Amino acid sequence: MNGTASKTPPSIGVFDSGFGGLTVLRALVARMPQARYAFIGDTARLPYGSKSRRTIARYAAQCAQFLVNEQGAEFLVIACNTASALALDAIQDAVSVPVLGVIEPGAEAARAASRTGDVLVIATDATVQSHAYAAACQARGLRALEMACPLLVPLVEEGWTDHSVTAEVIRIYLAELTTKAAAQGMNPDTLVLGCTHYPLLRPLIEAAVPAGMRVIDSAEATASTAMKLFTQHELEKHSPSAMDPNAQDPSKQDQIRCFATDSVEKFERLGSRFLNRPTGKVELVDLGG
Amino acid sequence: MNGTASKTPPSIGVFDSGFGGLTVLRALVARMPQARYAFIGDTARLPYGSKSRRTIARYAAQCAQFLVNEQGAEFLVIACNTASALALDAIQDAVSVPVLGVIEPGAEAARAASRTGDVLVIATDATVQSHAYAAACQARGLRALEMACPLLVPLVEEGWTDHSVTAEVIRIYLAELTTKAAAQGMNPDTLVLGCTHYPLLRPLIEAAVPAGMRVIDSAEATASTAMKLFTQHELEKHSPSAMDPNAQDPSKQDQIRCFATDSVEKFERLGSRFLNRPTGKVELVDLGG
Repeated sequence: MNGTASKTPPSIGVFDSGFGGLTVLRALVARMPQARYAFIGDTARLPYGSKSRRTIARYAAQCAQFLVNEQGAEFLVIACNTASALALDAIQDAVSVPVLGVIEPGAEAARAASRTGDVLVIATDATVQSHAYAAACQARGLRALEMACPLLVPLVEEGWTDHSVTAEVIRIYLAELTTKAAAQGMNPDTLVLGCTHYPLLRPLIEAAVPAGMRVIDSAEATASTAMKLFTQHELEKHSPSAMDPNAQDPSKQDQIRCFATDSVEKFERLGSRFLNRPTGKVELVDLGG
Repeated sequence: MNGTASKTPPSIGVFDSGFGGLTVLRALVARMPQARYAFIGDTARLPYGSKSRRTIARYAAQCAQFLVNEQGAEFLVIACNTASALALDAIQDAVSVPVLGVIEPGAEAARAASRTGDVLVIATDATVQSHAYAAACQARGLRALEMACPLLVPLVEEGWTDHSVTAEVIRIYLAELTTKAAAQGMNPDTLVLGCTHYPLLRPLIEAAVPAGMRVIDSAEATASTAMKLFTQHELEKHSPSAMDPNAQDPSKQDQIRCFATDSVEKFERLGSRFLNRPTGKVELVDLGG
Protein backbone atom coordinates (compact mmCIF):
# COMPACT_ATOMS: atom_id res chain seq x y z
CA MET A 1 0.00 0.00 0.00
CA ASN A 2 1.44 3.35 -0.94
CA GLY A 3 1.28 6.70 0.78
CA THR A 4 -1.58 7.97 -1.36
CA ALA A 5 -3.80 4.99 -0.59
CA SER A 6 -3.17 5.31 3.11
CA LYS A 7 -4.55 8.86 2.99
CA THR A 8 -7.95 7.83 1.58
CA PRO A 9 -10.37 9.10 4.19
CA PRO A 10 -12.08 6.28 6.06
CA SER A 11 -15.75 5.74 5.34
CA ILE A 12 -18.57 5.58 7.86
CA GLY A 13 -22.08 4.42 6.96
CA VAL A 14 -25.01 5.88 8.87
CA PHE A 15 -28.49 4.40 8.65
CA ASP A 16 -31.89 5.59 9.81
CA SER A 17 -35.49 4.82 8.92
CA GLY A 18 -35.90 8.48 7.95
CA PHE A 19 -33.82 11.62 8.20
CA GLY A 20 -33.95 12.05 12.00
CA GLY A 21 -30.63 10.17 12.16
CA LEU A 22 -29.04 13.23 10.56
CA THR A 23 -28.77 14.52 14.17
CA VAL A 24 -26.38 11.60 14.76
CA LEU A 25 -24.53 12.32 11.51
CA ARG A 26 -24.16 15.95 12.56
CA ALA A 27 -22.61 14.87 15.87
CA LEU A 28 -20.30 12.41 14.06
CA VAL A 29 -19.08 15.01 11.55
CA ALA A 30 -18.36 17.45 14.39
CA ARG A 31 -16.13 14.86 16.06
CA MET A 32 -14.60 13.19 12.98
CA PRO A 33 -14.33 15.77 10.19
CA GLN A 34 -11.61 13.68 8.51
CA ALA A 35 -14.01 10.85 7.64
CA ARG A 36 -16.32 10.45 4.67
CA TYR A 37 -19.95 9.56 5.31
CA ALA A 38 -22.73 7.74 3.46
CA PHE A 39 -26.17 8.18 5.02
CA ILE A 40 -29.28 6.26 4.01
CA GLY A 41 -32.80 7.09 5.14
CA ASP A 42 -35.31 4.32 4.42
CA THR A 43 -38.01 6.90 3.77
CA ALA A 44 -40.11 4.58 1.58
CA ARG A 45 -40.78 2.38 4.60
CA LEU A 46 -40.76 4.77 7.55
CA PRO A 47 -41.79 4.97 10.30
CA TYR A 48 -40.15 1.86 11.71
CA GLY A 49 -41.59 2.82 15.10
CA SER A 50 -44.97 1.25 14.38
CA LYS A 51 -43.71 -1.92 12.67
CA SER A 52 -42.91 -5.42 13.92
CA ARG A 53 -39.46 -6.74 14.79
CA ARG A 54 -39.54 -9.13 11.83
CA THR A 55 -40.24 -6.37 9.33
CA ILE A 56 -37.77 -3.92 10.86
CA ALA A 57 -34.97 -6.51 10.83
CA ARG A 58 -35.54 -7.23 7.13
CA TYR A 59 -35.55 -3.54 6.16
CA ALA A 60 -32.55 -2.65 8.33
CA ALA A 61 -30.41 -5.50 6.97
CA GLN A 62 -31.08 -4.32 3.40
CA CYS A 63 -30.01 -0.76 4.26
CA ALA A 64 -26.87 -1.95 6.07
CA GLN A 65 -25.89 -4.10 3.08
CA PHE A 66 -26.37 -1.13 0.75
CA LEU A 67 -23.98 0.99 2.84
CA VAL A 68 -21.30 -1.70 3.10
CA ASN A 69 -21.54 -3.48 -0.25
CA GLU A 70 -22.40 -0.54 -2.50
CA GLN A 71 -20.97 2.46 -0.64
CA GLY A 72 -17.89 0.82 0.85
CA ALA A 73 -18.64 1.70 4.48
CA GLU A 74 -16.02 0.28 6.87
CA PHE A 75 -18.02 1.03 9.99
CA LEU A 76 -21.77 1.35 10.55
CA VAL A 77 -23.69 3.58 12.92
CA ILE A 78 -27.35 2.65 13.32
CA ALA A 79 -28.78 6.11 13.93
CA CYS A 80 -32.29 4.79 14.52
CA ASN A 81 -33.39 3.88 18.00
CA THR A 82 -36.04 1.46 16.77
CA ALA A 83 -33.63 -0.44 14.52
CA SER A 84 -30.95 -0.41 17.24
CA ALA A 85 -33.48 -1.82 19.69
CA LEU A 86 -35.01 -4.46 17.46
CA ALA A 87 -32.55 -5.30 14.70
CA LEU A 88 -28.95 -4.84 15.84
CA ASP A 89 -28.33 -8.60 15.78
CA ALA A 90 -29.88 -8.92 12.33
CA ILE A 91 -27.69 -6.08 11.03
CA GLN A 92 -24.54 -7.56 12.55
CA ASP A 93 -25.40 -10.87 10.87
CA ALA A 94 -25.97 -9.14 7.52
CA VAL A 95 -22.61 -7.34 7.25
CA SER A 96 -18.98 -7.99 8.16
CA VAL A 97 -17.99 -4.53 9.49
CA PRO A 98 -18.33 -3.23 13.06
CA VAL A 99 -21.83 -1.97 13.90
CA LEU A 100 -22.74 0.53 16.61
CA GLY A 101 -26.32 1.27 17.67
CA VAL A 102 -27.62 4.21 19.69
CA ILE A 103 -29.05 2.33 22.70
CA GLU A 104 -25.86 1.28 24.49
CA PRO A 105 -24.15 4.70 24.22
CA GLY A 106 -27.33 6.38 25.47
CA ALA A 107 -27.54 4.04 28.46
CA GLU A 108 -23.84 4.50 29.18
CA ALA A 109 -24.21 8.29 29.17
CA ALA A 110 -27.18 7.93 31.54
CA ARG A 111 -25.04 5.84 33.90
CA ALA A 112 -22.35 8.53 33.90
CA ALA A 113 -24.91 11.28 34.54
CA SER A 114 -27.22 9.73 37.13
CA ARG A 115 -26.53 9.94 40.87
CA THR A 116 -29.80 8.36 42.04
CA GLY A 117 -29.56 5.45 39.59
CA ASP A 118 -33.12 6.12 38.38
CA VAL A 119 -33.57 7.30 34.78
CA LEU A 120 -36.48 8.14 32.49
CA VAL A 121 -36.50 7.32 28.77
CA ILE A 122 -38.77 8.80 26.10
CA ALA A 123 -38.90 7.16 22.65
CA THR A 124 -41.15 5.78 19.92
CA ASP A 125 -43.68 3.07 20.66
CA ALA A 126 -41.60 0.23 19.17
CA THR A 127 -38.44 1.27 21.03
CA VAL A 128 -40.35 1.36 24.31
CA GLN A 129 -42.06 -1.96 23.66
CA SER A 130 -38.67 -3.56 23.00
CA HIS A 131 -37.52 -2.42 26.49
CA ALA A 132 -34.02 -2.16 25.01
CA TYR A 133 -33.17 0.97 27.03
CA ALA A 134 -34.47 -0.60 30.24
CA ALA A 135 -32.31 -3.68 29.62
CA ALA A 136 -29.21 -1.62 28.77
CA CYS A 137 -29.77 0.52 31.88
CA GLN A 138 -30.37 -2.52 34.08
CA ALA A 139 -27.09 -4.04 32.88
CA ARG A 140 -25.42 -0.90 34.29
CA GLY A 141 -27.22 -1.03 37.63
CA LEU A 142 -29.78 1.63 36.73
CA ARG A 143 -33.55 1.49 36.98
CA ALA A 144 -35.25 2.90 33.89
CA LEU A 145 -38.87 3.87 33.23
CA GLU A 146 -39.70 4.20 29.53
CA MET A 147 -42.62 5.98 27.85
CA ALA A 148 -43.69 6.30 24.23
CA CYS A 149 -44.34 9.86 23.00
CA PRO A 150 -45.85 9.28 19.54
CA LEU A 151 -46.77 12.92 18.89
CA LEU A 152 -43.25 14.34 19.15
CA VAL A 153 -41.96 13.10 15.78
CA PRO A 154 -44.90 14.55 13.82
CA LEU A 155 -44.58 17.83 15.73
CA VAL A 156 -40.89 18.07 14.77
CA GLU A 157 -41.68 17.19 11.15
CA GLU A 158 -44.39 19.88 11.11
CA GLY A 159 -41.65 22.31 12.12
CA TRP A 160 -43.34 23.16 15.43
CA THR A 161 -40.07 22.83 17.37
CA ASP A 162 -40.65 26.12 19.21
CA HIS A 163 -44.44 26.12 19.47
CA SER A 164 -46.78 26.41 22.45
CA VAL A 165 -48.68 23.27 21.37
CA THR A 166 -45.44 21.27 21.39
CA ALA A 167 -44.50 22.68 24.81
CA GLU A 168 -47.94 21.60 26.10
CA VAL A 169 -47.63 18.08 24.63
CA ILE A 170 -44.17 17.71 26.21
CA ARG A 171 -45.56 18.96 29.54
CA ILE A 172 -48.39 16.38 29.40
CA TYR A 173 -46.06 13.50 28.50
CA LEU A 174 -43.46 14.40 31.16
CA ALA A 175 -46.12 14.90 33.85
CA GLU A 176 -47.49 11.43 33.10
CA LEU A 177 -43.99 9.93 33.15
CA THR A 178 -42.84 11.58 36.38
CA THR A 179 -46.13 10.67 38.09
CA LYS A 180 -45.64 7.03 37.10
CA ALA A 181 -42.04 7.13 38.32
CA ALA A 182 -43.07 8.55 41.70
CA ALA A 183 -45.79 5.87 42.01
CA GLN A 184 -43.05 3.25 41.58
CA GLY A 185 -40.93 4.83 44.29
CA MET A 186 -38.33 6.08 41.82
CA ASN A 187 -36.29 9.25 42.22
CA PRO A 188 -35.19 9.95 38.62
CA ASP A 189 -32.55 12.59 37.92
CA THR A 190 -31.82 11.83 34.26
CA LEU A 191 -33.96 11.83 31.10
CA VAL A 192 -32.74 9.99 27.98
CA LEU A 193 -33.94 11.27 24.58
CA GLY A 194 -34.37 7.89 22.90
CA CYS A 195 -35.36 9.11 19.42
CA THR A 196 -33.24 10.98 16.88
CA HIS A 197 -35.96 13.58 16.32
CA TYR A 198 -35.98 14.68 19.94
CA PRO A 199 -32.71 16.71 19.97
CA LEU A 200 -34.60 19.34 17.96
CA LEU A 201 -36.97 19.65 20.93
CA ARG A 202 -34.19 19.84 23.50
CA PRO A 203 -34.83 23.50 24.50
CA LEU A 204 -38.53 22.78 25.15
CA ILE A 205 -37.71 19.53 26.96
CA GLU A 206 -35.02 21.20 29.11
CA ALA A 207 -37.60 23.82 30.08
CA ALA A 208 -40.18 21.16 31.01
CA VAL A 209 -38.14 18.72 33.14
CA PRO A 210 -38.01 19.11 36.94
CA ALA A 211 -35.18 21.31 38.23
CA GLY A 212 -31.85 19.53 38.32
CA MET A 213 -32.78 16.75 35.90
CA ARG A 214 -30.07 15.99 33.33
CA VAL A 215 -31.13 15.51 29.70
CA ILE A 216 -29.11 12.94 27.73
CA ASP A 217 -29.05 13.08 23.95
CA SER A 218 -28.43 9.61 22.49
CA ALA A 219 -27.12 11.17 19.27
CA GLU A 220 -24.29 12.97 21.08
CA ALA A 221 -23.53 9.93 23.23
CA THR A 222 -23.40 7.69 20.17
CA ALA A 223 -21.06 10.00 18.28
CA SER A 224 -18.65 10.06 21.23
CA THR A 225 -18.62 6.27 21.43
CA ALA A 226 -18.31 5.94 17.65
CA MET A 227 -15.25 8.18 17.65
CA LYS A 228 -13.48 5.97 20.19
CA LEU A 229 -14.40 2.69 18.49
CA PHE A 230 -13.78 3.89 14.98
CA THR A 231 -10.39 5.41 15.78
CA GLN A 232 -9.37 2.13 17.41
CA HIS A 233 -10.70 0.17 14.42
CA GLU A 234 -8.82 2.37 11.97
CA LEU A 235 -5.57 2.08 13.92
CA GLU A 236 -5.88 -1.70 13.90
CA LYS A 237 -6.98 -2.12 10.31
CA HIS A 238 -5.50 0.74 8.37
CA SER A 239 -2.84 3.38 8.38
CA PRO A 240 -2.68 5.74 11.36
CA SER A 241 -2.61 8.65 8.90
CA ALA A 242 -6.20 8.01 7.92
CA MET A 243 -7.30 9.33 11.30
CA ASP A 244 -4.54 11.94 11.49
CA PRO A 245 -6.22 14.97 13.10
CA ASN A 246 -3.91 17.19 11.02
CA ALA A 247 -4.99 15.56 7.76
CA GLN A 248 -6.94 17.77 5.41
CA ASP A 249 -10.71 17.37 5.75
CA PRO A 250 -12.54 16.14 2.67
CA SER A 251 -14.25 18.92 0.75
CA LYS A 252 -17.80 19.53 1.94
CA GLN A 253 -19.26 18.25 -1.32
CA ASP A 254 -17.40 14.95 -1.04
CA GLN A 255 -17.76 14.45 2.68
CA ILE A 256 -21.40 13.41 2.92
CA ARG A 257 -23.50 11.47 0.45
CA CYS A 258 -27.16 11.11 1.34
CA PHE A 259 -29.46 8.43 -0.02
CA ALA A 260 -33.18 7.87 0.47
CA THR A 261 -35.56 5.14 -0.65
CA ASP A 262 -38.34 7.65 -1.39
CA SER A 263 -39.39 11.30 -1.16
CA VAL A 264 -35.97 12.87 -1.68
CA GLU A 265 -37.65 16.30 -1.88
CA LYS A 266 -38.97 16.03 1.67
CA PHE A 267 -35.59 14.73 2.82
CA GLU A 268 -33.78 17.69 1.24
CA ARG A 269 -36.37 20.16 2.56
CA LEU A 270 -36.45 18.95 6.18
CA GLY A 271 -33.05 17.27 6.48
CA SER A 272 -31.05 20.49 6.77
CA ARG A 273 -32.82 21.26 10.07
CA PHE A 274 -31.44 18.02 11.48
CA LEU A 275 -27.99 18.16 9.88
CA ASN A 276 -27.66 21.90 10.54
CA ARG A 277 -26.37 22.43 7.02
CA PRO A 278 -27.77 21.60 3.55
CA THR A 279 -27.96 17.86 2.81
CA GLY A 280 -26.93 18.45 -0.80
CA LYS A 281 -28.50 16.38 -3.53
CA VAL A 282 -30.19 13.31 -2.01
CA GLU A 283 -29.92 10.25 -4.26
CA LEU A 284 -32.88 7.90 -4.68
CA VAL A 285 -32.18 4.18 -4.24
CA ASP A 286 -34.52 1.25 -4.72
CA LEU A 287 -34.07 -1.54 -2.18
CA GLY A 288 -36.94 -3.53 -3.64
CA GLY A 289 -39.43 -2.69 -0.90
CA MET B 1 -76.22 -21.29 -11.72
CA ASN B 2 -78.63 -22.68 -9.16
CA GLY B 3 -80.70 -20.90 -6.53
CA THR B 4 -78.19 -21.53 -3.77
CA ALA B 5 -75.34 -19.93 -5.66
CA SER B 6 -77.40 -16.88 -6.48
CA LYS B 7 -77.91 -16.28 -2.76
CA THR B 8 -74.20 -16.11 -1.98
CA PRO B 9 -73.77 -12.66 -0.49
CA PRO B 10 -71.86 -10.33 -2.79
CA SER B 11 -68.35 -9.46 -1.78
CA ILE B 12 -66.88 -5.97 -1.45
CA GLY B 13 -63.16 -5.35 -1.02
CA VAL B 14 -62.06 -2.30 0.95
CA PHE B 15 -58.48 -1.08 0.93
CA ASP B 16 -56.59 1.46 3.00
CA SER B 17 -52.95 2.15 3.83
CA GLY B 18 -53.83 1.67 7.50
CA PHE B 19 -56.99 1.15 9.52
CA GLY B 20 -58.43 4.67 9.09
CA GLY B 21 -60.44 3.29 6.16
CA LEU B 22 -62.48 1.33 8.68
CA THR B 23 -64.58 4.53 8.94
CA VAL B 24 -65.52 3.90 5.30
CA LEU B 25 -66.16 0.21 5.99
CA ARG B 26 -68.42 1.19 8.90
CA ALA B 27 -70.43 3.46 6.60
CA LEU B 28 -70.64 0.70 3.96
CA VAL B 29 -71.85 -1.96 6.42
CA ALA B 30 -74.52 0.43 7.71
CA ARG B 31 -75.87 0.87 4.18
CA MET B 32 -75.30 -2.66 2.80
CA PRO B 33 -75.60 -5.17 5.65
CA GLN B 34 -76.31 -7.97 3.15
CA ALA B 35 -72.80 -7.85 1.68
CA ARG B 36 -69.64 -9.56 2.83
CA TYR B 37 -66.49 -7.49 3.22
CA ALA B 38 -62.76 -8.07 3.01
CA PHE B 39 -60.67 -5.17 4.32
CA ILE B 40 -56.92 -4.85 3.95
CA GLY B 41 -54.77 -2.29 5.74
CA ASP B 42 -51.25 -2.01 4.33
CA THR B 43 -49.86 -1.32 7.79
CA ALA B 44 -46.33 -2.51 6.95
CA ARG B 45 -45.96 0.36 4.53
CA LEU B 46 -48.07 3.15 6.00
CA PRO B 47 -48.30 6.09 5.94
CA TYR B 48 -48.85 6.51 2.22
CA GLY B 49 -49.31 10.26 2.83
CA SER B 50 -45.57 10.93 2.85
CA LYS B 51 -44.65 8.68 -0.09
CA SER B 52 -44.29 9.30 -3.82
CA ARG B 53 -46.89 8.55 -6.48
CA ARG B 54 -44.74 5.78 -7.93
CA THR B 55 -44.42 3.96 -4.61
CA ILE B 56 -48.07 4.43 -3.66
CA ALA B 57 -49.25 3.08 -7.03
CA ARG B 58 -47.14 -0.05 -6.62
CA TYR B 59 -48.33 -0.74 -3.08
CA ALA B 60 -51.99 -0.01 -3.87
CA ALA B 61 -52.03 -2.29 -6.91
CA GLN B 62 -50.69 -5.17 -4.80
CA CYS B 63 -53.41 -4.67 -2.18
CA ALA B 64 -56.15 -4.44 -4.81
CA GLN B 65 -54.96 -7.67 -6.44
CA PHE B 66 -54.98 -9.41 -3.07
CA LEU B 67 -58.61 -8.43 -2.49
CA VAL B 68 -59.78 -9.47 -5.96
CA ASN B 69 -57.58 -12.49 -6.73
CA GLU B 70 -57.31 -14.02 -3.26
CA GLN B 71 -60.46 -12.79 -1.50
CA GLY B 72 -62.83 -12.83 -4.44
CA ALA B 73 -63.92 -9.20 -4.18
CA GLU B 74 -66.36 -8.23 -6.94
CA PHE B 75 -66.18 -4.52 -6.24
CA LEU B 76 -63.43 -2.39 -4.71
CA VAL B 77 -63.66 0.67 -2.53
CA ILE B 78 -60.38 2.55 -2.10
CA ALA B 79 -60.89 3.89 1.41
CA CYS B 80 -57.66 5.86 1.36
CA ASN B 81 -57.61 9.43 0.17
CA THR B 82 -53.94 9.32 -0.77
CA ALA B 83 -54.30 6.16 -2.87
CA SER B 84 -57.53 7.47 -4.42
CA ALA B 85 -55.75 10.70 -5.32
CA LEU B 86 -52.53 9.20 -6.65
CA ALA B 87 -53.20 5.61 -7.68
CA LEU B 88 -56.80 5.13 -8.84
CA ASP B 89 -55.68 4.62 -12.45
CA ALA B 90 -53.00 2.14 -11.39
CA ILE B 91 -55.54 0.17 -9.35
CA GLN B 92 -58.07 0.14 -12.18
CA ASP B 93 -55.34 -1.17 -14.48
CA ALA B 94 -54.38 -3.87 -11.96
CA VAL B 95 -57.82 -5.48 -11.50
CA SER B 96 -60.86 -6.23 -13.61
CA VAL B 97 -63.64 -5.26 -11.16
CA PRO B 98 -65.23 -1.84 -10.66
CA VAL B 99 -63.19 0.47 -8.41
CA LEU B 100 -64.50 3.45 -6.44
CA GLY B 101 -62.23 5.96 -4.70
CA VAL B 102 -63.15 8.51 -2.03
CA ILE B 103 -62.27 11.73 -3.88
CA GLU B 104 -65.11 11.94 -6.40
CA PRO B 105 -67.89 11.14 -3.88
CA GLY B 106 -66.43 13.72 -1.48
CA ALA B 107 -66.34 16.39 -4.18
CA GLU B 108 -69.87 15.49 -5.29
CA ALA B 109 -71.17 15.84 -1.72
CA ALA B 110 -69.42 19.22 -1.50
CA ARG B 111 -71.18 20.32 -4.69
CA ALA B 112 -74.53 19.32 -3.24
CA ALA B 113 -73.83 21.13 0.03
CA SER B 114 -72.21 24.38 -1.10
CA ARG B 115 -74.23 27.47 -2.01
CA THR B 116 -71.30 29.86 -2.51
CA GLY B 117 -69.34 27.39 -4.65
CA ASP B 118 -66.24 27.83 -2.48
CA VAL B 119 -65.06 24.84 -0.44
CA LEU B 120 -62.17 24.04 1.90
CA VAL B 121 -60.44 20.64 1.99
CA ILE B 122 -58.21 19.28 4.76
CA ALA B 123 -56.17 16.14 4.08
CA THR B 124 -52.71 14.56 4.28
CA ASP B 125 -49.73 16.16 2.58
CA ALA B 126 -49.70 13.77 -0.39
CA THR B 127 -53.44 14.15 -1.03
CA VAL B 128 -53.10 17.94 -0.98
CA GLN B 129 -50.03 17.92 -3.22
CA SER B 130 -51.92 15.78 -5.75
CA HIS B 131 -54.64 18.50 -5.92
CA ALA B 132 -57.09 15.70 -6.64
CA TYR B 133 -59.86 17.33 -4.58
CA ALA B 134 -59.29 20.70 -6.25
CA ALA B 135 -59.54 19.04 -9.67
CA ALA B 136 -62.67 17.07 -8.74
CA CYS B 137 -64.26 20.23 -7.31
CA GLN B 138 -63.28 22.33 -10.33
CA ALA B 139 -64.91 19.76 -12.63
CA ARG B 140 -68.13 20.50 -10.74
CA GLY B 141 -67.83 24.28 -10.95
CA LEU B 142 -66.51 24.69 -7.39
CA ARG B 143 -63.42 26.52 -6.20
CA ALA B 144 -61.47 24.51 -3.60
CA LEU B 145 -58.66 25.50 -1.26
CA GLU B 146 -56.75 22.53 0.17
CA MET B 147 -54.48 22.35 3.21
CA ALA B 148 -52.40 19.54 4.71
CA CYS B 149 -52.93 18.90 8.44
CA PRO B 150 -50.16 16.38 9.25
CA LEU B 151 -50.72 16.39 13.02
CA LEU B 152 -54.33 15.21 12.95
CA VAL B 153 -53.64 11.54 12.10
CA PRO B 154 -51.09 11.10 14.94
CA LEU B 155 -53.46 12.86 17.36
CA VAL B 156 -56.26 10.43 16.43
CA GLU B 157 -53.91 7.45 16.74
CA GLU B 158 -52.79 8.71 20.16
CA GLY B 159 -56.47 8.58 21.16
CA TRP B 160 -56.64 12.34 21.78
CA THR B 161 -59.93 12.68 19.86
CA ASP B 162 -61.51 14.76 22.64
CA HIS B 163 -58.47 16.61 23.95
CA SER B 164 -57.74 20.31 24.40
CA VAL B 165 -54.44 19.98 22.50
CA THR B 166 -56.27 18.52 19.51
CA ALA B 167 -58.90 21.27 19.68
CA GLU B 168 -56.07 23.85 19.67
CA VAL B 169 -54.30 22.20 16.72
CA ILE B 170 -57.58 22.14 14.76
CA ARG B 171 -58.18 25.80 15.63
CA ILE B 172 -54.69 26.74 14.37
CA TYR B 173 -55.06 24.79 11.12
CA LEU B 174 -58.57 26.14 10.38
CA ALA B 175 -57.55 29.73 11.21
CA GLU B 176 -54.67 29.45 8.74
CA LEU B 177 -56.95 27.93 6.10
CA THR B 178 -59.79 30.44 6.44
CA THR B 179 -57.30 33.35 6.43
CA LYS B 180 -55.79 32.05 3.19
CA ALA B 181 -59.27 31.62 1.69
CA ALA B 182 -60.24 35.20 2.59
CA ALA B 183 -56.98 36.48 1.10
CA GLN B 184 -57.96 34.79 -2.18
CA GLY B 185 -61.39 36.43 -2.12
CA MET B 186 -63.16 33.16 -1.40
CA ASN B 187 -66.34 32.82 0.63
CA PRO B 188 -66.25 29.15 1.67
CA ASP B 189 -69.31 27.53 3.25
CA THR B 190 -68.24 23.85 3.12
CA LEU B 191 -65.31 21.91 4.62
CA VAL B 192 -64.41 18.47 3.20
CA LEU B 193 -62.71 15.97 5.55
CA GLY B 194 -60.32 14.46 3.02
CA CYS B 195 -58.76 11.81 5.28
CA THR B 196 -60.36 8.73 6.77
CA HIS B 197 -59.01 9.51 10.24
CA TYR B 198 -60.79 12.84 10.43
CA PRO B 199 -64.35 11.58 11.05
CA LEU B 200 -63.18 10.70 14.57
CA LEU B 201 -62.44 14.41 15.06
CA ARG B 202 -65.78 15.55 13.65
CA PRO B 203 -67.15 16.92 16.95
CA LEU B 204 -64.01 19.05 17.51
CA ILE B 205 -63.98 20.16 13.87
CA GLU B 206 -67.69 21.05 13.92
CA ALA B 207 -67.02 23.16 17.03
CA ALA B 208 -64.10 24.96 15.35
CA VAL B 209 -65.54 25.89 11.93
CA PRO B 210 -67.18 29.27 11.36
CA ALA B 211 -70.94 29.36 12.04
CA GLY B 212 -73.00 27.94 9.19
CA MET B 213 -70.14 25.99 7.55
CA ARG B 214 -71.11 22.49 6.43
CA VAL B 215 -68.71 19.64 7.21
CA ILE B 216 -68.58 16.86 4.59
CA ASP B 217 -67.32 13.42 5.55
CA SER B 218 -65.81 11.67 2.51
CA ALA B 219 -66.38 8.27 4.16
CA GLU B 220 -70.15 8.79 4.35
CA ALA B 221 -70.27 10.27 0.85
CA THR B 222 -68.31 7.32 -0.55
CA ALA B 223 -70.54 4.73 1.12
CA SER B 224 -73.63 6.37 -0.37
CA THR B 225 -72.12 6.35 -3.85
CA ALA B 226 -70.86 2.79 -3.42
CA MET B 227 -74.33 1.58 -2.51
CA LYS B 228 -75.78 3.00 -5.72
CA LEU B 229 -73.00 1.71 -7.98
CA PHE B 230 -72.74 -1.68 -6.34
CA THR B 231 -76.47 -2.33 -6.38
CA GLN B 232 -76.53 -1.47 -10.07
CA HIS B 233 -73.49 -3.68 -10.72
CA GLU B 234 -75.06 -6.60 -8.87
CA LEU B 235 -78.33 -6.23 -10.74
CA GLU B 236 -76.47 -6.32 -14.04
CA LYS B 237 -74.03 -9.09 -13.26
CA HIS B 238 -75.74 -11.37 -10.79
CA SER B 239 -79.07 -12.37 -9.42
CA PRO B 240 -81.30 -9.65 -8.01
CA SER B 241 -81.69 -11.77 -4.87
CA ALA B 242 -78.09 -11.11 -3.91
CA MET B 243 -78.98 -7.56 -3.01
CA ASP B 244 -82.45 -8.44 -1.76
CA PRO B 245 -82.97 -6.15 1.24
CA ASN B 246 -85.04 -8.92 2.84
CA ALA B 247 -82.22 -11.46 2.52
CA GLN B 248 -80.73 -12.64 5.76
CA ASP B 249 -77.61 -10.69 6.72
CA PRO B 250 -74.42 -12.75 7.02
CA SER B 251 -73.51 -13.61 10.58
CA LYS B 252 -71.33 -10.96 12.17
CA GLN B 253 -68.37 -13.33 12.31
CA ASP B 254 -68.58 -14.05 8.58
CA GLN B 255 -69.44 -10.57 7.41
CA ILE B 256 -66.07 -8.84 7.78
CA ARG B 257 -62.59 -10.28 7.33
CA CYS B 258 -59.75 -7.92 8.16
CA PHE B 259 -56.20 -8.31 6.88
CA ALA B 260 -53.06 -6.31 7.63
CA THR B 261 -49.51 -6.43 6.29
CA ASP B 262 -48.03 -5.81 9.76
CA SER B 263 -48.81 -4.95 13.37
CA VAL B 264 -52.11 -6.81 13.66
CA GLU B 265 -52.13 -6.10 17.40
CA LYS B 266 -52.21 -2.34 16.85
CA PHE B 267 -54.87 -2.81 14.18
CA GLU B 268 -57.04 -4.85 16.53
CA ARG B 269 -56.47 -2.44 19.43
CA LEU B 270 -57.20 0.81 17.55
CA GLY B 271 -59.39 -0.46 14.72
CA SER B 272 -62.52 -0.88 16.83
CA ARG B 273 -62.60 2.89 17.42
CA PHE B 274 -62.87 3.43 13.68
CA LEU B 275 -65.21 0.51 12.91
CA ASN B 276 -67.31 1.16 16.00
CA ARG B 277 -67.31 -2.55 16.80
CA PRO B 278 -64.54 -5.11 17.34
CA THR B 279 -62.51 -5.89 14.21
CA GLY B 280 -62.28 -9.55 15.21
CA LYS B 281 -59.10 -11.46 14.51
CA VAL B 282 -56.95 -9.54 12.02
CA GLU B 283 -55.05 -11.85 9.64
CA LEU B 284 -51.44 -11.09 8.71
CA VAL B 285 -50.60 -11.19 4.99
CA ASP B 286 -47.23 -10.76 3.30
CA LEU B 287 -47.36 -8.81 0.05
CA GLY B 288 -43.60 -8.98 -0.34
CA GLY B 289 -42.87 -5.39 0.66
